[in-house]
Amino acid sequence: MKLYDTTLAPNPRRVRIFLAEKGLSVPIVPLDISKGENRTPEMLARNPLGGVPFLELDDGTVIAESIAICRYFERTHPEPPLFGVGAKGEAWVEMWQRRMELELFRHVTGAFQNLHPFFKGRIEQVPEYGEVCRRNAATRMRWLDGELAKRPFVAGDAYTVADITALVAIDFGRQTEIRIPEECESLKRWHAAVSGRPSAKA
Amino acid sequence: MKLYDTTLAPNPRRVRIFLAEKGLSVPIVPLDISKGENRTPEMLARNPLGGVPFLELDDGTVIAESIAICRYFERTHPEPPLFGVGAKGEAWVEMWQRRMELELFRHVTGAFQNLHPFFKGRIEQVPEYGEVCRRNAATRMRWLDGELAKRPFVAGDAYTVADITALVAIDFGRQTEIRIPEECESLKRWHAAVSGRPSAKA
Repeated sequence: MKLYDTTLAPNPRRVRIFLAEKGLSVPIVPLDISKGENRTPEMLARNPLGGVPFLELDDGTVIAESIAICRYFERTHPEPPLFGVGAKGEAWVEMWQRRMELELFRHVTGAFQNLHPFFKGRIEQVPEYGEVCRRNAATRMRWLDGELAKRPFVAGDAYTVADITALVAIDFGRQTEIRIPEECESLKRWHAAVSGRPSAKA
Repeated sequence: MKLYDTTLAPNPRRVRIFLAEKGLSVPIVPLDISKGENRTPEMLARNPLGGVPFLELDDGTVIAESIAICRYFERTHPEPPLFGVGAKGEAWVEMWQRRMELELFRHVTGAFQNLHPFFKGRIEQVPEYGEVCRRNAATRMRWLDGELAKRPFVAGDAYTVADITALVAIDFGRQTEIRIPEECESLKRWHAAVSGRPSAKA
């Protein structure tokens, strides 16, 4: 098994934190996406969409998409559970994981893709939309602050994949000057707690 | 158990098709989102973000987010499996489900939100970004056409939640004149097949 990884993007960090929380170590193949190492003919033969990370299993199967990779490890290494437990618990964590993606991660990455020089010439940037994303990210952080006033972690009393998505989104926001609003004390308390876990360095 | 539903949006249709494929019938509470019935104080007390659909369990727990609702029913009613089987199978379907969301559903709904009069005054529309989404949707349909030349359904030989997301995305594209490109024979063959299933009427 090999994990094709890069340190320059938010999605790979989600998988690295997830593996660290599980206490798992997987052989890494580092790819420098700024040099296009993910888009060589050899890599596109493995993963035609060119995204990173992707996981190559011993039988040659390639699993792309960060959350699909995390889910694979949740199934093969259930402890500690990071996607919830039981029908209701799993649905609950899925709801919060998706909210962290749709309400936070989406806007932070939308801002980056439409405002940052890295994507200039790579995609059709629409700076006006990037600014909408920046404003939405700030609005959603204020909403999340209210949620985190009620409980220690995003989905409840336990750390889950929803915390990983939120942490990575917030930290990646720095690239486009998206920061936790000063008055969001609960969000800051949570951010300090999850950033203090050894997994956050992954 | 009650499913709060609306017929005017793509996400609720995903859940209805999913339930139809499972052969399940859940009591429905219809909400007219054009009249703001999802944003009354009574509804916001249940589901503060105001999205539809959401599922209210008998113990009062509210599960929002379409895929979280589908996952709840997958766990309580495993047959027929629509999220894959086994660690590798579940990761594989998750990969394709997410690709259908990120490569297709996201662009179709991005076009709608930024171009359609329904969202005028409701969100900050950026028509230029809506046009980028329309172009991306067409590009991704051509890519998906190539994938569907290799197998009957999006994730393989069996119908899964990835087909549901792709079907709902493509049908909703009509709202902004996004249509399957003429030359995409495999995508058209697949679309006719999944549209012919009784669940597609849900």
